[in-house]
Amino acid sequence: MTHRDQMTRTSSGFFVSPEAPIACDDPIPTPAAPAPDILRCAYMELIVTDLAASREFYVDVLGLYVTEEDDEAIYLRSTEEFIHHNLVLRQGPIAAVAAFSYRVRSADDLDRAVAFYTELGCRVERRPGGFVRGIGDSVRVEDPLGFPYEFFFQTDHVERLSWRYDLHTPGELVRLDHFNQVTPDVPRAVSFMQALGFRVTEDIQDEAGTVYAAWMRRKPTVHDTAMTGGDGPRMHHVAFATHEKHNILAICDKLGALRRSDAIERGPGRHGVSNAFYLYLRDPDGHRVEIYTQDYYTGDPDNPVVTWDVHDNQRRDWWGNAVVPSWYTEASPVLDLDGNPQPLRARTDDSEMAVTIGADGFSYTRPDEDERADRPGEYKLGHQL
Amino acid sequence: MTHRDQMTRTSSGFFVSPEAPIACDDPIPTPAAPAPDILRCAYMELIVTDLAASREFYVDVLGLYVTEEDDEAIYLRSTEEFIHHNLVLRQGPIAAVAAFSYRVRSADDLDRAVAFYTELGCRVERRPGGFVRGIGDSVRVEDPLGFPYEFFFQTDHVERLSWRYDLHTPGELVRLDHFNQVTPDVPRAVSFMQALGFRVTEDIQDEAGTVYAAWMRRKPTVHDTAMTGGDGPRMHHVAFATHEKHNILAICDKLGALRRSDAIERGPGRHGVSNAFYLYLRDPDGHRVEIYTQDYYTGDPDNPVVTWDVHDNQRRDWWGNAVVPSWYTEASPVLDLDGNPQPLRARTDDSEMAVTIGADGFSYTRPDEDERADRPGEYKLGHQL
Amino acid sequence: MTHRDQMTRTSSGFFVSPEAPIACDDPIPTPAAPAPDILRCAYMELIVTDLAASREFYVDVLGLYVTEEDDEAIYLRSTEEFIHHNLVLRQGPIAAVAAFSYRVRSADDLDRAVAFYTELGCRVERRPGGFVRGIGDSVRVEDPLGFPYEFFFQTDHVERLSWRYDLHTPGELVRLDHFNQVTPDVPRAVSFMQALGFRVTEDIQDEAGTVYAAWMRRKPTVHDTAMTGGDGPRMHHVAFATHEKHNILAICDKLGALRRSDAIERGPGRHGVSNAFYLYLRDPDGHRVEIYTQDYYTGDPDNPVVTWDVHDNQRRDWWGNAVVPSWYTEASPVLDLDGNPQPLRARTDDSEMAVTIGADGFSYTRPDEDERADRPGEYKLGHQL
Amino acid sequence: MTHRDQMTRTSSGFFVSPEAPIACDDPIPTPAAPAPDILRCAYMELIVTDLAASREFYVDVLGLYVTEEDDEAIYLRSTEEFIHHNLVLRQGPIAAVAAFSYRVRSADDLDRAVAFYTELGCRVERRPGGFVRGIGDSVRVEDPLGFPYEFFFQTDHVERLSWRYDLHTPGELVRLDHFNQVTPDVPRAVSFMQALGFRVTEDIQDEAGTVYAAWMRRKPTVHDTAMTGGDGPRMHHVAFATHEKHNILAICDKLGALRRSDAIERGPGRHGVSNAFYLYLRDPDGHRVEIYTQDYYTGDPDNPVVTWDVHDNQRRDWWGNAVVPSWYTEASPVLDLDGNPQPLRARTDDSEMAVTIGADGFSYTRPDEDERADRPGEYKLGHQL
Repeated sequence: MTHRDQMTRTSSGFFVSPEAPIACDDPIPTPAAPAPDILRCAYMELIVTDLAASREFYVDVLGLYVTEEDDEAIYLRSTEEFIHHNLVLRQGPIAAVAAFSYRVRSADDLDRAVAFYTELGCRVERRPGGFVRGIGDSVRVEDPLGFPYEFFFQTDHVERLSWRYDLHTPGELVRLDHFNQVTPDVPRAVSFMQALGFRVTEDIQDEAGTVYAAWMRRKPTVHDTAMTGGDGPRMHHVAFATHEKHNILAICDKLGALRRSDAIERGPGRHGVSNAFYLYLRDPDGHRVEIYTQDYYTGDPDNPVVTWDVHDNQRRDWWGNAVVPSWYTEASPVLDLDGNPQPLRARTDDSEMAVTIGADGFSYTRPDEDERADRPGEYKLGHQL
Repeated sequence: MTHRDQMTRTSSGFFVSPEAPIACDDPIPTPAAPAPDILRCAYMELIVTDLAASREFYVDVLGLYVTEEDDEAIYLRSTEEFIHHNLVLRQGPIAAVAAFSYRVRSADDLDRAVAFYTELGCRVERRPGGFVRGIGDSVRVEDPLGFPYEFFFQTDHVERLSWRYDLHTPGELVRLDHFNQVTPDVPRAVSFMQALGFRVTEDIQDEAGTVYAAWMRRKPTVHDTAMTGGDGPRMHHVAFATHEKHNILAICDKLGALRRSDAIERGPGRHGVSNAFYLYLRDPDGHRVEIYTQDYYTGDPDNPVVTWDVHDNQRRDWWGNAVVPSWYTEASPVLDLDGNPQPLRARTDDSEMAVTIGADGFSYTRPDEDERADRPGEYKLGHQL
Repeated sequence: MTHRDQMTRTSSGFFVSPEAPIACDDPIPTPAAPAPDILRCAYMELIVTDLAASREFYVDVLGLYVTEEDDEAIYLRSTEEFIHHNLVLRQGPIAAVAAFSYRVRSADDLDRAVAFYTELGCRVERRPGGFVRGIGDSVRVEDPLGFPYEFFFQTDHVERLSWRYDLHTPGELVRLDHFNQVTPDVPRAVSFMQALGFRVTEDIQDEAGTVYAAWMRRKPTVHDTAMTGGDGPRMHHVAFATHEKHNILAICDKLGALRRSDAIERGPGRHGVSNAFYLYLRDPDGHRVEIYTQDYYTGDPDNPVVTWDVHDNQRRDWWGNAVVPSWYTEASPVLDLDGNPQPLRARTDDSEMAVTIGADGFSYTRPDEDERADRPGEYKLGHQL
Repeated sequence: MTHRDQMTRTSSGFFVSPEAPIACDDPIPTPAAPAPDILRCAYMELIVTDLAASREFYVDVLGLYVTEEDDEAIYLRSTEEFIHHNLVLRQGPIAAVAAFSYRVRSADDLDRAVAFYTELGCRVERRPGGFVRGIGDSVRVEDPLGFPYEFFFQTDHVERLSWRYDLHTPGELVRLDHFNQVTPDVPRAVSFMQALGFRVTEDIQDEAGTVYAAWMRRKPTVHDTAMTGGDGPRMHHVAFATHEKHNILAICDKLGALRRSDAIERGPGRHGVSNAFYLYLRDPDGHRVEIYTQDYYTGDPDNPVVTWDVHDNQRRDWWGNAVVPSWYTEASPVLDLDGNPQPLRARTDDSEMAVTIGADGFSYTRPDEDERADRPGEYKLGHQL
């Protein structure tokens, strides 16, 4: 991790630096065994408490395509996906995440995954027939951060529906883009993810070097997953990409028409981090879903890491619109391999919400101005909280 | 004004009814003299306290075209305008509105305007050479509601720049769309505007018939001006139209890039009222500017009036996003014909803000649900205030 | 009609001038009776030879909403329409147009329509119960140009679906925008339409003053109808508006997905005339339908008339893409009030196609360059024809 | 290469199959030396005959950003690029391509490139200081197909301008997307590119297995380069990506406004191959530039190869719009390492143009219909040629 003195301030107000190993007090040891070669985030398995209500949300409202379904589970995919699914909805007793699943480059990477996590002392389970339909030989682990991670290569191919414009909706979701995880100690998590082969693309820090969040990728987008500081392990959100911004607006319009606008938690808006256009929804169980479009290519090995000041009012919303408190505080439980919720560990570092909004928070739009001085900006809603 | 019992509830949750004369306790008498035939809202004359700062906002940021300028005033127009200007910025001691100016159908309508307002006992001033450059024979009045209204027909023609795509910006403003006025007694104001020849297209009411705001048109869009309940007379906003929604998003993105995101007061979002996509900005003096696109045709005489319940959480933002308090409380002074600010009269009816947000407010997304019950919607920011 | 010497050449290459009465050799006499006050083009009655095939095209592909239907006819409307319909599809023996129907301002305008056309010696038929469902008292005429025109005021109101985003498709058609008629003598037709109260907004002429086409409006858009020079009377097209350009692209994409791309005749592209973004389709009977968005406001009485040089290669497509020959030559028959096709009268003036494309045509992108000289532009397809 | 019998026909009409080594009669031997690990197409060096005219086209019209320039060369980049440039314009005596330049993963890959091409008997030149500014140690080769290929890793970093919305234009080009090369024997070229580590994503074939074109990638988009059948070696086009479709339309609109619409050669349209939205321009020297958006992710090792029938009328334009002949026949010369144009070798297989358009061509929109039968589709322009 680069000290701010060593970073370059851009004309847009954030900083860039070469990626560097992140320092943490209590690092997870790096295994001698090589990490599996991860291609991309591939699907999430969500436990939902009312399968019919979830089906209505993901299929009827959001327009995901049903590859397969029965009374217990629904397998959904986005428009351009050719693997079996990007989302599994499974009926269960509590709303939670059963797996963050990644596709690896080859069948051999499953052996590597077993060795890598076994060396870390993690619980590892391999099922040659897969844990869900449409996916073959798979490895699931309880990772050192407490998350249920899955790795697989074999999968049934299904038809890519990119050319089936007769099926497309105004808010068409074309790709699974990323996961986002809540964890108490972000540098510790990032350090571990670097060992697993992830590359850091962006982060949020304060001047003292406290890391509030970090974004990491395998495929060459801004992220396959991100680590958000907070009590964890929890799942912050799962994100699907659209082609254009109006597709995201169309989802809002449709939710309004269905009198379900309260499913809109935050946005739409433009992120500072990632430069993407975004929207956050909450599904019937409160699982958070992001709709996302137009970040940037990150596939070069020397891709500059972008660092945002935690007090920069445009870091999470480039337009300075307020982040709602629930977005900082609420997240979904994650399950262990027996299906029981993982216990939470509390964040001990400062909370991003506490340092940026409300009476004790501090944020700026222009770094050289005192945010709390009397000026036109004071009508911004963030000032009301 | 139609009682809610007589309205038809639509499948979208609002009500429709035929336009009817609005009732009010203290009506302004309707003159025997015929009203002038108004074509459309044509321009606003804004007094600004720092002409250079305002020029930067309207020309460099928003991309309006300068027809003419000197040290005291700048004449601006939108892309497709062929009359001299849609906005005059004039240096002055306090930020205020000097004129809401309407174009009439013919030179004879100026005589009608004089007779109409004279009969009402209003102060009327006619200048054959116009009050501003580029506009000829004009009538200015202090109307019965305290607003400085102007009427003109003669104007210099300038080139319509619709085909000049080489000059266009990502956030191109193509038309002046409407004004919005703050007045304490909305039914009284609407009744007067009906006498002036305006047609009501939408309004916000409660079940008891209190009217919180109303939209009125001459040209066949949702409005040329609207009346918003509050201490008045004040100017709530002036609105320019773009062609597409992404144009509005581009303005936000640019303000972020300029580190001026605090100019964004509310939005972007989808209105319930008007069905338009919107954004509210504040200029360097705090004058509010709306950017607006895609309302609907209203030119038929039996165009149905749309009535929204004041507690309908989607009336002002179809996505249920919170209206910031400043949007309800702040507005620009208006000047009398001597250039002095008009004194304010307080609203005595309920305030829309008080009845809908905060601890004592009440609003619903689904009319049959109790808003304050425990349910997923509670993370909406409106609940935090 | 203004001579080109009197016009002002704009920086975009076309000319503007004040509207003036158009000269023609063989004018239709202007009735002493006042013309009816027309609001707007309201609906077209199309005779189709396979009602099921037409329903599939207009409802399943284009997404128009069915207000009412039976075995003989289908009544369709666009998203924001509140009158009963914008299009009637009626099963019949030959593909043709039974009525170009306009809404008038009041019931009294029907009397005016009767008097106006009766004085012209036209066949006039009035039906108090209307000619089609959902429309009351109506007047149909065989106008002096041979077109079946209808006028009505009374109509059933239906729900405007603008807020029903749950029903909207990616290619949503929001409004009926205009008709387009083929007639042999354009000045004669325009002169008659001016007598009927239409205002000219744009035209295409050569230097000698030959008029190839003209656009005329009642509502303040570029047109409610246009006159295209050719053997007539025939119907060139009926046009629906979308909100944004991507909606038009979505229709093309969907036709591709349905393997019906041969329904796309011309475009998508940007018009020079009207500045609108456009697409021309052919329905199963060959009736031409335009999809159209983003022209400009024309409602001021001194709105400048735009004149394009017939040899300006960007007049019909601002990008200089070739107009396909079928677009110039093919059109739908129109019926008399007995349902028989009107005989055609041949155009005697030059044909726009002949003077602009093919071996004998001439067109330029830059007026000061010789089009047929050797230069990079020669790969343009128009040069191949 | 998979025989059509072994392919799966999709519901969209094209075929999919697993990638397989392509067969060719006269293969280039695969070197024993490992191929360099190529990240992505990085820049093209174009020789232009009028540097000022080219600067106007690429900078003033298309909005590329100047990283550096002098009297002999201009270094340009797209919005989100952080390496020194994506395009070099260099003044020279004839319009041609001096280099197709690829970025490799590490400095070591330059050694691999030298060994790989040396083993093939190619002319290889390495310059530790680079061939152009902003790029360090580089290898240039005359590859076995006659193309000047460059490989480099070291480059100066420049600021990514993605957040600088104040600089963006309506037609903003955000990324270099791909190259396209003309070569006489497509299978021979593809086979060689597979040896170089490229993966095939799509191709066009006839039933007999003749390959007319193929698309190949390193980064996970549809391509970094493509091979188009024709007399070669020549450069068919270089392509830049925009974020949204309206950005591409804005470029057309701007060219119209500048009276340079003859720079538009083909499109805009939707590709069948790649599913991207496209536009082809010709620069002042006739170099072809594609503007491109929204293809799909191809990064999985088992990504299905898409095969289009050469007679499928929607393969090159999903809307069935005609491909202009110049697009098939014209292309830019490429230079050897001494700066002399490479001689052309003629294509001996059937030409795609000959088999699909004009009097002897054959194409279908629906595979089960005879294209030349009398039906509504006959007005399509392709039928006129």
